[in-house]
Amino acid sequence: MKNKVKIQEQERVDDLLTHELGIIQSDEVFSFSMDAVLLARFASVPKYGKILDLCTGNGVIPLLLSTRTKAKIDGIEIQPRLADMARRSVEMNGLQDQLAILEGDLRELVKKTGHGVYDAITVNPPYMPLTGGDLKINEHQAIARHEIHCSLEEVIAASMRLVRPGGKVYMVHKPQRLGEILTLFRQYRMEPKGIRFVHPRAGAEANMVLIEALRDGKPDVRVLPPLIVYDDQGNYCQEIMNIYYGPKEGSA
Amino acid sequence: MKNKVKIQEQERVDDLLTHELGIIQSDEVFSFSMDAVLLARFASVPKYGKILDLCTGNGVIPLLLSTRTKAKIDGIEIQPRLADMARRSVEMNGLQDQLAILEGDLRELVKKTGHGVYDAITVNPPYMPLTGGDLKINEHQAIARHEIHCSLEEVIAASMRLVRPGGKVYMVHKPQRLGEILTLFRQYRMEPKGIRFVHPRAGAEANMVLIEALRDGKPDVRVLPPLIVYDDQGNYCQEIMNIYYGPKEGSA
Repeated sequence: MKNKVKIQEQERVDDLLTHELGIIQSDEVFSFSMDAVLLARFASVPKYGKILDLCTGNGVIPLLLSTRTKAKIDGIEIQPRLADMARRSVEMNGLQDQLAILEGDLRELVKKTGHGVYDAITVNPPYMPLTGGDLKINEHQAIARHEIHCSLEEVIAASMRLVRPGGKVYMVHKPQRLGEILTLFRQYRMEPKGIRFVHPRAGAEANMVLIEALRDGKPDVRVLPPLIVYDDQGNYCQEIMNIYYGPKEGSA
Repeated sequence: MKNKVKIQEQERVDDLLTHELGIIQSDEVFSFSMDAVLLARFASVPKYGKILDLCTGNGVIPLLLSTRTKAKIDGIEIQPRLADMARRSVEMNGLQDQLAILEGDLRELVKKTGHGVYDAITVNPPYMPLTGGDLKINEHQAIARHEIHCSLEEVIAASMRLVRPGGKVYMVHKPQRLGEILTLFRQYRMEPKGIRFVHPRAGAEANMVLIEALRDGKPDVRVLPPLIVYDDQGNYCQEIMNIYYGPKEGSA
């Protein structure tokens, strides 16, 4: 950690994998999941330019991406409490020159930035439609998991407006919604180009999907090798180990 | 084989897996591929009722399905030469009471049958758009592989008209076209419910996709465990062995 920052009650500082980075987390407010780590690894980010992370939460994806690129990375988060956590993590790691955390509504962001200003966008959006699931969890978690402040379509529409023509959008989501996701991407002129499914075990259904969409691309999908999380003994497979603990993390 | 039928020049009779069935094939005209075998196994066919196989070729899918259901199965094929091969295979196996081969254009079939008369539909359509690939292969093969007589959209539109509400459509296709396929299914009110990707090896990209779509269904996709064809030694994996050589083939 480069700088000392204030750590609130119910917060803690976790190591961010092997990156010599720290991240402020809180079980009550927000802590990152494997989904964010796999998305940060899946994204082919440009070495320079501008990257945007929508629904950035505590900033885990911008922090992870900072190890792989010199690009400027903005993260936008609608919850002031989470945006504050993310900002303090950025400061703690001394990354203020590369990473900026914006507090606000992703649906309105284009009014500030203008159209098509980002080379790549990453997003780990809320997975659950408003109609489904129970909302008895606390407000912070509810907003992170349910489409309370933005629907899937609003996320995709915002991405299209914010990414440049020829730029790429990377999303992690639930396979259950694959039909909707691909339809919406195509409706907003972003063509799915790479898809990777994550299966907890080799013989299990996918429980996560990673998608790369190209603005103004032509239809041509590559379905990448399945990413299997656990082997038969219940240990992380080698690829997951590499993602979490290197050495491949720094090599892209 | 129950009945003797005329076998033309350039034709041969192959065993159809372990089913005590025979099938008339021809390298020059048409012989079935693994795609058809995997689709026939993937489809959850009703035990009774009516099933339709579009683009039936030499009738391989109706013949395979006949081992798993008492349903009446129609196969439609636009090429007279292939429809004739398929009809002789049906007769050769003594399956005329269960299987009917229709010669004609799938786009026109609804005029004869009426709307929504099938409980399930299977289809292994031409994979290649007319714009791509070379057409220097012979006419029979060109029609089977390229969208000469029906586009992907026409196949899906015909399926929607022919399957009953709540009925299922099973398609095998190339993953490259996944975006188009899912978009078109949903556009024609058939919701993708089950998707399985076929990978030649565990670490390779998918080269085949099996899709189950439900007419008038709600969005909710299950992405099934990947189906891996070859193991590290280059031998068929156990599941492929089971599909080709039983014992699981007859148990569904």
